Amino acid sequence: MESKSVQNEWSSGVWAHLTAVRERSPLVQCITNFVSMDLVANTLLSAGASPAMVHSVVEIPDFTPHIHALCVNVGTLTPDWLPSMKAAAELASNLGKPWVLDPAAVSCSGFRLKACLELVELKPTVIKGNGSEIIALSSASPGQTKGADSSHESTDAIEAAKSLAESSGAIVAVSGAVDIVTDGKKVIGVHNGTKMMQKITATGCSLAGLIAAFLAIDPLRALEATVSAMSVFGIAGELGEAMAKGPGSLRMHLIDSLYGLDETTVLNLVNITRLG
Amino acid sequence: MESKSVQNEWSSGVWAHLTAVRERSPLVQCITNFVSMDLVANTLLSAGASPAMVHSVVEIPDFTPHIHALCVNVGTLTPDWLPSMKAAAELASNLGKPWVLDPAAVSCSGFRLKACLELVELKPTVIKGNGSEIIALSSASPGQTKGADSSHESTDAIEAAKSLAESSGAIVAVSGAVDIVTDGKKVIGVHNGTKMMQKITATGCSLAGLIAAFLAIDPLRALEATVSAMSVFGIAGELGEAMAKGPGSLRMHLIDSLYGLDETTVLNLVNITRLG
Amino acid sequence: MESKSVQNEWSSGVWAHLTAVRERSPLVQCITNFVSMDLVANTLLSAGASPAMVHSVVEIPDFTPHIHALCVNVGTLTPDWLPSMKAAAELASNLGKPWVLDPAAVSCSGFRLKACLELVELKPTVIKGNGSEIIALSSASPGQTKGADSSHESTDAIEAAKSLAESSGAIVAVSGAVDIVTDGKKVIGVHNGTKMMQKITATGCSLAGLIAAFLAIDPLRALEATVSAMSVFGIAGELGEAMAKGPGSLRMHLIDSLYGLDETTVLNLVNITRLG
Repeated sequence: MESKSVQNEWSSGVWAHLTAVRERSPLVQCITNFVSMDLVANTLLSAGASPAMVHSVVEIPDFTPHIHALCVNVGTLTPDWLPSMKAAAELASNLGKPWVLDPAAVSCSGFRLKACLELVELKPTVIKGNGSEIIALSSASPGQTKGADSSHESTDAIEAAKSLAESSGAIVAVSGAVDIVTDGKKVIGVHNGTKMMQKITATGCSLAGLIAAFLAIDPLRALEATVSAMSVFGIAGELGEAMAKGPGSLRMHLIDSLYGLDETTVLNLVNITRLG
Repeated sequence: MESKSVQNEWSSGVWAHLTAVRERSPLVQCITNFVSMDLVANTLLSAGASPAMVHSVVEIPDFTPHIHALCVNVGTLTPDWLPSMKAAAELASNLGKPWVLDPAAVSCSGFRLKACLELVELKPTVIKGNGSEIIALSSASPGQTKGADSSHESTDAIEAAKSLAESSGAIVAVSGAVDIVTDGKKVIGVHNGTKMMQKITATGCSLAGLIAAFLAIDPLRALEATVSAMSVFGIAGELGEAMAKGPGSLRMHLIDSLYGLDETTVLNLVNITRLG
Repeated sequence: MESKSVQNEWSSGVWAHLTAVRERSPLVQCITNFVSMDLVANTLLSAGASPAMVHSVVEIPDFTPHIHALCVNVGTLTPDWLPSMKAAAELASNLGKPWVLDPAAVSCSGFRLKACLELVELKPTVIKGNGSEIIALSSASPGQTKGADSSHESTDAIEAAKSLAESSGAIVAVSGAVDIVTDGKKVIGVHNGTKMMQKITATGCSLAGLIAAFLAIDPLRALEATVSAMSVFGIAGELGEAMAKGPGSLRMHLIDSLYGLDETTVLNLVNITRLG
């Protein structure tokens, strides 16, 4: 009953956030990896936001002042991309615009770990990763190097997420079977989504972009906006999977479902609980 | 009745153009943005053309002489990509090969605006943009900077399109609810297409690629080839939307429809009028 | 009857290979072109492998030692990408990890041909191309330049493939109406697949990635692993085409089918013969 009442409390907020994204169509700059640009842009368009894949360091002084939120994802990082990520992040922070850091595969190299730690210094509003990424980033010092990602459940990363949230000042979101969102004190669990979404490349990156869009329309309530974005994306995945025969069709139905979400469906399917 | 007779006049030309693309499979070099490479290539393949995403400046002297048309799109421009765009454009112009400039998000930075103006100097056969892009490019001087795109209907851009066509010598195509094509004197309206296509990233870029393929098979009648490409792409979108549940499935059905277009469907659905 | 018995002999091996990929989820590093990153990653995920699109030269010393196989594809090659391709290939070879070279559009420039010849020197386990690419690579010397690809049937490339296999020490795989795989002596024909797969961009690149995943779980039997990957991909395409209305839906159904392949289907549809 407690759980049911908490769900209802969140449901109307989730719907209000999605409605605001659709009505205000926030401009979301994405400096993301090559693999994900297509799906991130289509996710944002389907949610009603306006994506802009502008990543050149020479364009940031002109362009970034006009955006409503920024998403930085290091998934195919090379040294020449880092200055634009930093410039955009710094400008967003200075202008009070929300931004999301997705430390994709942070532990795949010492270079990437160091880059992510430097980006964390630029005060992201939200850091979104999977369990392994959040644990790696939370426990890391720049000299440390790890190889390929190990697997952790999101719930294994709760303490790491709280610790990273406290040290960075960011909301930390951990995607997984249950999505975890924390400001370092409160811990919220988003129970929407399906396992098969992990079989589609760039769904995690797309979620990071979507969080940026939701932050854009409620920047002062970053935890709530993040929770809403994760719930909406998860619900779209649940509806999509009900129609899908595999990851190929799920990818299509996910986008269609996100585009078509109506109030009754959102209110019925939001599944968010306070975990701590 | 006038309108009906004009439609019929264009219909057979549209079908003849599509048939020629399918039969001759022109090789279309695309120097396009990262977001759109996949959809541009699949659009060209579905239309029967042969796409080649070759963008390295060192390959242009060897490769570009073999192409039948070129498409240059500045959607994710960085300074290191500009020399290859210019080299390919210049070589195409010198060799008498048609080429299309898509000034995507031209007004997002002073750098991009200047780059597009320099590309216009290299004599594109067609400049294809949305209303805001054509207005920005038409009215711009290199020192001018604007932020994010504002929204304009394509019909708001008719005078800007005519002016740009006259000053550049290019056919100017403006995508929108009604697509506008002008050589600076004649103004043609293409009434095919659907609004939901704008909710799929890279449809505009794909249209630019398709225009290049149509130019390749009728280079001396660039206005007519452009009109045909826009009508064909729009018809594929209309057929696609009739089957789609959202932008995800529309993207799939658009490609399928483009691939499967038959003569009766094309002749019945072409909707082109003389506007001026 | 001979043919039937050979098919049966291969079938159980193909299924065993696919099962091993699903169970062991090999980590496959892909340094591939911009056009194909999305489909290559989704192909690997659907087959049960774990793709990693890590291409920065600074990350290779940390990351490549952890991978199980590597795929290098030169489809959108620029000079700045070549050092990382070489570094990863050399490290993979030194560590005894299998790697695949996809010399995409090798003959489009002298630069690309020279780059591919240098990569061949680094001892790929498998070289996978279409008929034209294998013929060009087999007959090439670094000074030679060709323009756009000419079309050859895979069967036209058998002698070139055998010669390249002997000179390079690699298994050579030629995709086409019949896929050809040779170690320089034996020649195997894989008769799975459909013509419409060529109308989807990056299916060839995805096949190269899939071969890398299969090599990862049977590195000592590279010819057999390659044959299995080509058969599995072809069967997924056949099942997909039975449901598809064009290349857009085939792309989706291909991924779904690859994800859902069961033992009975694989055993019934494998169509592999000894050609020489």
